[in-house]
Amino acid sequence: MLFLVRMDVALPDTLVGHERADLLAREKAYSQELQRAGSWPHIWRVVGEYANYSVFDVRSNDELHDLLSGLPLFPHMTITVTPLATHPSDVHA
Amino acid sequence: MLFLVRMDVALPDTLVGHERADLLAREKAYSQELQRAGSWPHIWRVVGEYANYSVFDVRSNDELHDLLSGLPLFPHMTITVTPLATHPSDVHA
Amino acid sequence: MLFLVRMDVALPDTLVGHERADLLAREKAYSQELQRAGSWPHIWRVVGEYANYSVFDVRSNDELHDLLSGLPLFPHMTITVTPLATHPSDVHA
Amino acid sequence: MLFLVRMDVALPDTLVGHERADLLAREKAYSQELQRAGSWPHIWRVVGEYANYSVFDVRSNDELHDLLSGLPLFPHMTITVTPLATHPSDVHA
Amino acid sequence: MLFLVRMDVALPDTLVGHERADLLAREKAYSQELQRAGSWPHIWRVVGEYANYSVFDVRSNDELHDLLSGLPLFPHMTITVTPLATHPSDVHA
Amino acid sequence: MLFLVRMDVALPDTLVGHERADLLAREKAYSQELQRAGSWPHIWRVVGEYANYSVFDVRSNDELHDLLSGLPLFPHMTITVTPLATHPSDVHA
Amino acid sequence: MLFLVRMDVALPDTLVGHERADLLAREKAYSQELQRAGSWPHIWRVVGEYANYSVFDVRSNDELHDLLSGLPLFPHMTITVTPLATHPSDVHA
Amino acid sequence: MLFLVRMDVALPDTLVGHERADLLAREKAYSQELQRAGSWPHIWRVVGEYANYSVFDVRSNDELHDLLSGLPLFPHMTITVTPLATHPSDVHA
Amino acid sequence: MLFLVRMDVALPDTLVGHERADLLAREKAYSQELQRAGSWPHIWRVVGEYANYSVFDVRSNDELHDLLSGLPLFPHMTITVTPLATHPSDVHA
Amino acid sequence: MLFLVRMDVALPDTLVGHERADLLAREKAYSQELQRAGSWPHIWRVVGEYANYSVFDVRSNDELHDLLSGLPLFPHMTITVTPLATHPSDVHA
Repeated sequence: MLFLVRMDVALPDTLVGHERADLLAREKAYSQELQRAGSWPHIWRVVGEYANYSVFDVRSNDELHDLLSGLPLFPHMTITVTPLATHPSDVHA
Repeated sequence: MLFLVRMDVALPDTLVGHERADLLAREKAYSQELQRAGSWPHIWRVVGEYANYSVFDVRSNDELHDLLSGLPLFPHMTITVTPLATHPSDVHA
Repeated sequence: MLFLVRMDVALPDTLVGHERADLLAREKAYSQELQRAGSWPHIWRVVGEYANYSVFDVRSNDELHDLLSGLPLFPHMTITVTPLATHPSDVHA
Repeated sequence: MLFLVRMDVALPDTLVGHERADLLAREKAYSQELQRAGSWPHIWRVVGEYANYSVFDVRSNDELHDLLSGLPLFPHMTITVTPLATHPSDVHA
Repeated sequence: MLFLVRMDVALPDTLVGHERADLLAREKAYSQELQRAGSWPHIWRVVGEYANYSVFDVRSNDELHDLLSGLPLFPHMTITVTPLATHPSDVHA
Repeated sequence: MLFLVRMDVALPDTLVGHERADLLAREKAYSQELQRAGSWPHIWRVVGEYANYSVFDVRSNDELHDLLSGLPLFPHMTITVTPLATHPSDVHA
Repeated sequence: MLFLVRMDVALPDTLVGHERADLLAREKAYSQELQRAGSWPHIWRVVGEYANYSVFDVRSNDELHDLLSGLPLFPHMTITVTPLATHPSDVHA
Repeated sequence: MLFLVRMDVALPDTLVGHERADLLAREKAYSQELQRAGSWPHIWRVVGEYANYSVFDVRSNDELHDLLSGLPLFPHMTITVTPLATHPSDVHA
Repeated sequence: MLFLVRMDVALPDTLVGHERADLLAREKAYSQELQRAGSWPHIWRVVGEYANYSVFDVRSNDELHDLLSGLPLFPHMTITVTPLATHPSDVHA
Repeated sequence: MLFLVRMDVALPDTLVGHERADLLAREKAYSQELQRAGSWPHIWRVVGEYANYSVFDVRSNDELHDLLSGLPLFPHMTITVTPLATHPSDVHA
């Protein structure tokens, strides 16, 4: 079951140095683990913005919320979620 | 080069019967031809709306505009285009 | 799996008399069948508006889109869908 | 008398440690007491957001404002209230 | 129990002559009956607009929706409802 | 001459203790003095928000701005002003 | 007492020929009469739009609404009204 | 050549005492010098807001940007600029 | 003096056949005449939309409004105008 | 391949003195280097705002994101990107 997710990141000015680098490293590791597990099949950078559009593949709304609220950057992001369904013209469906 | 495209369809009330069915059939054929050619790798229905989110893969802005303005439903759609770039955390990039 | 759905209805001025009454009767029957089947556990009127807030309980995004796009009033409605998850403070969860 | 209430939480960065944990514990207890008393029959997490949609069942606008403004998190929330009425298609009404 | 209600009127161009005059007369009579009954204590014209701000005094959300949806102009209005509570600084409360 | 005024209050986190209590006490006294003088005939709490809808009765725009900008909470409020006129259906006009 | 007024005009497609020319001539005469009488001291075209920004000088909200609702184009305009007060830095005040 | 300019002021909480008074005095002097020179023919307070609507009379866009970006309060203001043209109904044009 | 102009076109459904082709041909000729005269130095299609972003180079606001309101498509366009000034980092200025 | 880019700058109040001057000098140098290289053919100041409209000429979305995210002011800017295509009426195309 697919969802389009947009994440806009706004890090506080007070987050600097090692603390910042560590947080970003944990975010990257968390994201790549989910990508490899198949729950996060697509992630793209929005050109010119500190933001991404992603596609998640999950079994339920609860699973999706668990994944998103577990993001190390979650407290610093604005997230919007759009449920997706199979399109009748999709040649791959 | 990828672009996220959202299309919202609003057919006029006066479009009915055979004329309507024919238009929708041409739209579907046009979309599936581009999907098979690789220019339109993803198309998803937005749940509850007569709308889709799609990903296009093109060589230039001009090519993308040609593909979109050639859609049989183009006169009846509101389209928004978001340029996408490679995300530094993408395990497939 | 629960979704909050808001439906805003805008009937065309040209829809009158028997045709209108018939459409509204089919909408009501369709809604009540889904309510009795358990897929549409809540429906409330928004005070002062020709609109409702509803809760749907479905197994997938595809099922939800099928139910919503099958509404007799679907061509005359603006629908917004919000995926819901279990709240950690919910005493009934 | 039912109201749909959306609460968006934005905790200040300066709220940390024990003070933060204590505030969240008091919020949870307050919410669960109202749920058990029947004034707050539904609470759902909005997927991907630090927000909830809730339904309140109260006797008056004054009672609803008292309940909401008494929330321990009230100073840190944006709240929107939508009055609900019985829907004529509701099979439970 | 008080509610602030804003009504924006948009009459269709096809509504003219006697039909229009009759509709407006029925709206005025309906409004004045509710004003005299005490359910509609205030009605003000918004300067420069075909719109009004009103205050309704009702016992429940259901009663308010019945009054508003019964307005002869209801199909031609956009209505927004804001629930009001007693203000702690109100010298008349 | 009547104006509908909405005031949304956002106190800074740094305003605490005696300073905060004193400011709120001065706001209340200021409001009640104007209510008793007849310039501020209505004040209602917006349910669920730190906001009010008020009606002011003044002789001029200048007088209204003097009253509003003199509010002790003025630096911490977002204010919107809507000029009101007599409604032709008003039974009290 | 001054008010800034913005008027956006949207004439229906069905208004053509003599009927349209006559309406616009009456609008111009009405506007110029108020300008000469001093109630409408400024009128400017918004560059690129069928719209104007105007300043009105009236004794009351009721007078302003009478002037605006009497505009021959009133049924075809969206109007927004902003009350103005004397600015403390105004060298002409 | 005329422009309608709206300026919304938001002073930081940290600007207090002499520094604040000095900044406001310089803003007033700067404004009044331009008013006397004829570049800033109108300035009005927006009722209930720390904002003004002004009309500027300049020879070019560059001159207007120089005047506005030179305002002592410029770093603390949100400014919107609307180019104005002669209205065909203007009796003074 | 430069202005950024965005034009969004919405042709009525009733405009078809020769009348439509003729209007579009006149629009193109009008645009190209201004481009060749130097008043309209840039015109770009917005990808996926029946819209353009253009840059105009004119001597005054009045001249710009004359050019824009003279567009054959003017009655069917929504136009927004942004005044531009020389940027201090522009290497060509 | 052209893109219209709008950049709105909001420097933090804490950025002052040498650190601020140095950042702005690096931004200017970075911009002018790209202008001279041909990737940034146009930059204009938005009148009255700390903002610019620019046109970028790049080979791909990835190149554009690299250029924009490399701006020294990137962490302090809100950026919006609009892909542009050749307009069929462009006399220079």
